[in-house]
Amino acid sequence: MTAQTSSWMTEDLADVRDLARNFFEKEVAPNIEKFIEQHHVDRDLWNKAGELGLLCMSIPEEYGGGGGTFAHEAVLIEEQARVGDTSWGVSLHNSIVAHYLLSYGTEEQKQKWLPKMATGEVVGAIAMTEPGTGSDLQNVKTKAIQHGDEYVVNGSKTFITNGSQADLVIVVAKTDTAEAKNGISLVLVEADRPGYRCGRVLDKLGQRGQDTAELFFDDVRIPTSNLLGTAEGLGFIQLMQQLPQERLIIAVGAVAGMEGALAQTIAYTKSRQAFGKPIFAFQNTKFKLAEAATDAKIARVFVDDCVSKHLRGELDIPTVAMAKWWTTERAMSVADNCLQLHGGYGYMTEYPIARAWVDNRVQMIYAGTNEIMKEIIARTL
Amino acid sequence: MTAQTSSWMTEDLADVRDLARNFFEKEVAPNIEKFIEQHHVDRDLWNKAGELGLLCMSIPEEYGGGGGTFAHEAVLIEEQARVGDTSWGVSLHNSIVAHYLLSYGTEEQKQKWLPKMATGEVVGAIAMTEPGTGSDLQNVKTKAIQHGDEYVVNGSKTFITNGSQADLVIVVAKTDTAEAKNGISLVLVEADRPGYRCGRVLDKLGQRGQDTAELFFDDVRIPTSNLLGTAEGLGFIQLMQQLPQERLIIAVGAVAGMEGALAQTIAYTKSRQAFGKPIFAFQNTKFKLAEAATDAKIARVFVDDCVSKHLRGELDIPTVAMAKWWTTERAMSVADNCLQLHGGYGYMTEYPIARAWVDNRVQMIYAGTNEIMKEIIARTL
Amino acid sequence: MTAQTSSWMTEDLADVRDLARNFFEKEVAPNIEKFIEQHHVDRDLWNKAGELGLLCMSIPEEYGGGGGTFAHEAVLIEEQARVGDTSWGVSLHNSIVAHYLLSYGTEEQKQKWLPKMATGEVVGAIAMTEPGTGSDLQNVKTKAIQHGDEYVVNGSKTFITNGSQADLVIVVAKTDTAEAKNGISLVLVEADRPGYRCGRVLDKLGQRGQDTAELFFDDVRIPTSNLLGTAEGLGFIQLMQQLPQERLIIAVGAVAGMEGALAQTIAYTKSRQAFGKPIFAFQNTKFKLAEAATDAKIARVFVDDCVSKHLRGELDIPTVAMAKWWTTERAMSVADNCLQLHGGYGYMTEYPIARAWVDNRVQMIYAGTNEIMKEIIARTL
Amino acid sequence: MTAQTSSWMTEDLADVRDLARNFFEKEVAPNIEKFIEQHHVDRDLWNKAGELGLLCMSIPEEYGGGGGTFAHEAVLIEEQARVGDTSWGVSLHNSIVAHYLLSYGTEEQKQKWLPKMATGEVVGAIAMTEPGTGSDLQNVKTKAIQHGDEYVVNGSKTFITNGSQADLVIVVAKTDTAEAKNGISLVLVEADRPGYRCGRVLDKLGQRGQDTAELFFDDVRIPTSNLLGTAEGLGFIQLMQQLPQERLIIAVGAVAGMEGALAQTIAYTKSRQAFGKPIFAFQNTKFKLAEAATDAKIARVFVDDCVSKHLRGELDIPTVAMAKWWTTERAMSVADNCLQLHGGYGYMTEYPIARAWVDNRVQMIYAGTNEIMKEIIARTL
Repeated sequence: MTAQTSSWMTEDLADVRDLARNFFEKEVAPNIEKFIEQHHVDRDLWNKAGELGLLCMSIPEEYGGGGGTFAHEAVLIEEQARVGDTSWGVSLHNSIVAHYLLSYGTEEQKQKWLPKMATGEVVGAIAMTEPGTGSDLQNVKTKAIQHGDEYVVNGSKTFITNGSQADLVIVVAKTDTAEAKNGISLVLVEADRPGYRCGRVLDKLGQRGQDTAELFFDDVRIPTSNLLGTAEGLGFIQLMQQLPQERLIIAVGAVAGMEGALAQTIAYTKSRQAFGKPIFAFQNTKFKLAEAATDAKIARVFVDDCVSKHLRGELDIPTVAMAKWWTTERAMSVADNCLQLHGGYGYMTEYPIARAWVDNRVQMIYAGTNEIMKEIIARTL
Repeated sequence: MTAQTSSWMTEDLADVRDLARNFFEKEVAPNIEKFIEQHHVDRDLWNKAGELGLLCMSIPEEYGGGGGTFAHEAVLIEEQARVGDTSWGVSLHNSIVAHYLLSYGTEEQKQKWLPKMATGEVVGAIAMTEPGTGSDLQNVKTKAIQHGDEYVVNGSKTFITNGSQADLVIVVAKTDTAEAKNGISLVLVEADRPGYRCGRVLDKLGQRGQDTAELFFDDVRIPTSNLLGTAEGLGFIQLMQQLPQERLIIAVGAVAGMEGALAQTIAYTKSRQAFGKPIFAFQNTKFKLAEAATDAKIARVFVDDCVSKHLRGELDIPTVAMAKWWTTERAMSVADNCLQLHGGYGYMTEYPIARAWVDNRVQMIYAGTNEIMKEIIARTL
Repeated sequence: MTAQTSSWMTEDLADVRDLARNFFEKEVAPNIEKFIEQHHVDRDLWNKAGELGLLCMSIPEEYGGGGGTFAHEAVLIEEQARVGDTSWGVSLHNSIVAHYLLSYGTEEQKQKWLPKMATGEVVGAIAMTEPGTGSDLQNVKTKAIQHGDEYVVNGSKTFITNGSQADLVIVVAKTDTAEAKNGISLVLVEADRPGYRCGRVLDKLGQRGQDTAELFFDDVRIPTSNLLGTAEGLGFIQLMQQLPQERLIIAVGAVAGMEGALAQTIAYTKSRQAFGKPIFAFQNTKFKLAEAATDAKIARVFVDDCVSKHLRGELDIPTVAMAKWWTTERAMSVADNCLQLHGGYGYMTEYPIARAWVDNRVQMIYAGTNEIMKEIIARTL
Repeated sequence: MTAQTSSWMTEDLADVRDLARNFFEKEVAPNIEKFIEQHHVDRDLWNKAGELGLLCMSIPEEYGGGGGTFAHEAVLIEEQARVGDTSWGVSLHNSIVAHYLLSYGTEEQKQKWLPKMATGEVVGAIAMTEPGTGSDLQNVKTKAIQHGDEYVVNGSKTFITNGSQADLVIVVAKTDTAEAKNGISLVLVEADRPGYRCGRVLDKLGQRGQDTAELFFDDVRIPTSNLLGTAEGLGFIQLMQQLPQERLIIAVGAVAGMEGALAQTIAYTKSRQAFGKPIFAFQNTKFKLAEAATDAKIARVFVDDCVSKHLRGELDIPTVAMAKWWTTERAMSVADNCLQLHGGYGYMTEYPIARAWVDNRVQMIYAGTNEIMKEIIARTL
């Protein structure tokens, strides 16, 4: 069975893939252990990537970006998954933070921030979740209350990817505390504002090289021009519009992760012997791998179809919710079966399958839990 | 979420769909109970379908067929699944028996049989499985031994679709009993040959309107010109080449079946009340239906991709094995969850979901069990 | 691994088991096909069982019963499961209907009905479910409204086991339509009352020998002395108290069913060859059977523990809810895997596994759906 | 639903439970973070436990033990699981290493080692697995070749619990390399022998406080009196006899782990709000917890039955294999569902469910993978 080339691939994208693959193999893979120990990537990884044009590829050239599409970002995500890296929050920076600015920012905001994000001078983050709210965004407690020509931001956020390295944070806050959804706005908070503080990097089970952190806002004063866009109260709609792309990113990574886990495990079970024959030769091994290969193949075809639709602007919200929950659940199941086929070695962090297993687990939770995805789907039935 | 139109649909096919839908609704749906009671469809159903051009649509016009493609057959299968019919072995006749003749038959064989199959004058069957062999085709015991210008056929077959109505049966037999695979040939046996006998229609759990039967061959003499093709010993290869299309047919039907089960159950759970609200309003219901909708959608995208590849001659054997096992397993799971959401009514045959559940089960077994599919996939890893 | 003897077995019960086994093998097993065709057991099966003392074994001798315990009924259920019979609604008669009378009936009611139920002269049924209510008993629409010294019963019921043969039906009805739970009473309706009518026997997927039917009550007049017990409005509590025993009966049968399916499938896979060796010799077969054997063993230990507790009066409602949902789900899974290991034969009704599979399915629905069981358990967490 | 008291509990054991609970809460729970950082427990934890009589409780008093039974060890394991500790390899020391000595050691060996193991002066380990052999013990490569009155031990072992702290290691070695099973013997190697070396503590996904290590034997000379027992070639049989107790220990721990995970998650979901109500109030939460509670309850009843049988010497090998695979699989499933119900917090190591999830995973692999368990069961069917 030959590997499938995604329907949306082009020659131009193949070049991007080579560039990205080379970058991940040279700059990321050898440093994963180090990133894990320090709980963040090296700061200059961003700048190196920026120099090569790997940041903001899907942002128009007029804002310093690569002028590409979501397909460019998908290639990057796939190559990151292929080396098993979860330390670097690059897809959040590229495909999410930059796109909030591009979609909703004023011309001035775009001109100010996007070129710096493209070079790696500025690292972006987005702060949604709060201690105690989880996926329930309507009830955020963080406030950005207007006083004259400033907003005063108070509150705290948690589970913030790129938390310790972010220079610019998009904060989900209530500008009108009397309202639910309609009181929510997105505001831009620079990390050097007085009263802004990044707490500890959270001690997670996996993705331990990623600087997921808590953020605290203590009377942080920002100019009213830091409101994303020009009108208050649009934050909830903006979140709803952007979350699908975030979820599609996760699905793209999950598929590449499955393919990687499968390839590793086929190689492992063919090279290892037990009871006088390769582990691969046992029927249980063959069936588990055949099932994993089926999951990976079907997920590939489905997510490629989603990417193609997204490139055409035709991907609807429930379909991407399906992609998110199903691929992350399947990726976890594939990793789990592959780990088991490694025997005791599957539990040792030096084997990539071990890290894949523990890193994968949180995908079923973030960007809207898989339970939320099912609620979204059910609403449209 | 709008229903997805298959990527391979065309305007021409939409007309075929209308014709097929009308035929199934008028000629089949009202008679399903009757077919089940008599354990076969009415013989003239074949002729009516032939008159409308619904038989042998993917056979060239020169042989009396419709000159269409596999897509025409796929449309027919989908429309049959949509009315929940499993009585009529039409896809076996069209997409399998006729295609063995088309692919391997001599010009004379094609001229003799295909036009009659297209009108419904001749009903086709294929006899592979024997009592005691199951999916292990190399070990068939039925023999077709040459004596002068005749073969003498002896043996018995079971689980033969269209068994009681078939006029022409392609029989898998050993023409050389000293060989395994290489001793297998396909021979054409007409039902009116002396020594040919159709046994009882088997008492199956489901698909009870279909005349699945045992066949007995007791010194049946056929001319050597009834060898399919011109050389002995090619039967195993011919089977391996045609089985993928048979499996794809099953996958196409399974997807349509899932979509039907889902639609019925959404309607049912929205109309029925329990504990003061519609059954649909319970979170368990919503999650089960969201999962079923995801399965159906992903299966649709994957099988559509398989159909497109098949139309281009690019579908490989392990991919269709994936489609066969995965869609039939998912179709069963979807039917099972949908049945449960119907409560006690799900167990009553008057509810389509009940029939769907019990009819679906055998799809995981026939055309190569799902276990065989996993063996096929594993061999290519 | 030796078969486990239930902790609650005694020598006395071993004699009962012999008697029951002999009865099922002689009177039931040879007639299952016939029962299925006529959709009910022979009426005199009840009388024959009564003569042998197999009816009402757990009813005190003073009311004509056997003076035994629930363990006697458990033995009977296990022996019925062992021959694969689901036609005869004997456990409903013995362990449910008779016990409603014993627990709540007036002395007069007990004296009048129990001795006749013990001989088989009277067959009992209980009518809970209505078209459109399912497991939601508080909302029954059937009414028994007092007029002088009579109740006038109006309404309809469905899914009534022993429906066509019942001489005495305990009917769940509202005696006070202004109340929810507290308006519910149980009333005794004799089948020969004017206005009482048994509708068609329902066309079910499985358990087709059982006369599950609809009942209609059209101004049926019964004396007020037909109220079960002496006070109105206690029906809901009475149901809640008796349902656990009904669920335990199902669990007992499910365990015996798993053991039977497993034994049949071990025998089948050891005797059948595929690809040159017994089906049993494939690792997939061994793993599926090892998993089934584990399910059966664990279920046996758990349900035996439940039976022992029930005999001591210590079995609580959530524990029996666990037993009901888990054993019926496992029994279905075991039957499904065992059917698959039979290949095409597993789908033929002549193989007991086929009937077991389709008969088992409804256990996940009746006596409170498995979803209701989870609600019950969750309430106590 | 009240918590179930195990059938094998006694008043004496209740005192042991209090003692153990107090010890784990005081000496272990507050130090888990520290143990994890240093990848081993404090060495004096063993001595403190010895002083209190918590070591070797099931070893006769004449050898310095507590004179108790396996039930004493079970209580200890349950209390360890209750605080969520997996750092301390105490059950290996107590229930496995000490019992090899007790069951097969010469009187001299017992007198020499058991009293020191009971005080904690000596920590025990057992070295079975080798790089590349996994569960295939017949093919160990480590040799103990007799030269005069010494054995010379050469080879390496991996995944050795208590590896870095062990003073005495029971080594599985070939004393006759020409034989398979029959060439295997167990020999005692003291950690201070020249040529003995403990390699690095392995970097595992979970159970990170446990000093699982590699051991190297480079011409280690031991007296022939260090052969466990008096005859060579019995090692394989000795392993087969002791492995069931090791597997039962795992099952006992798995049950206690499930109960702990369930209790934590009920508390968490009742205290946390989402979308305006406690997470517990969602039907999906209730169903997942009801299922987890059912698993925990059924596992408790089954494992209690196994313990009771083991105490009577009646527990057979396939039954304990069932207990091992099923409880560890269920424990993983329960932990996984409970983690998910915690949302993002379930992925943070400060929440016990996170550690439980990652620590549990290896239970499906060690002491014979769950696949090996199914092979063992299938052999007896």
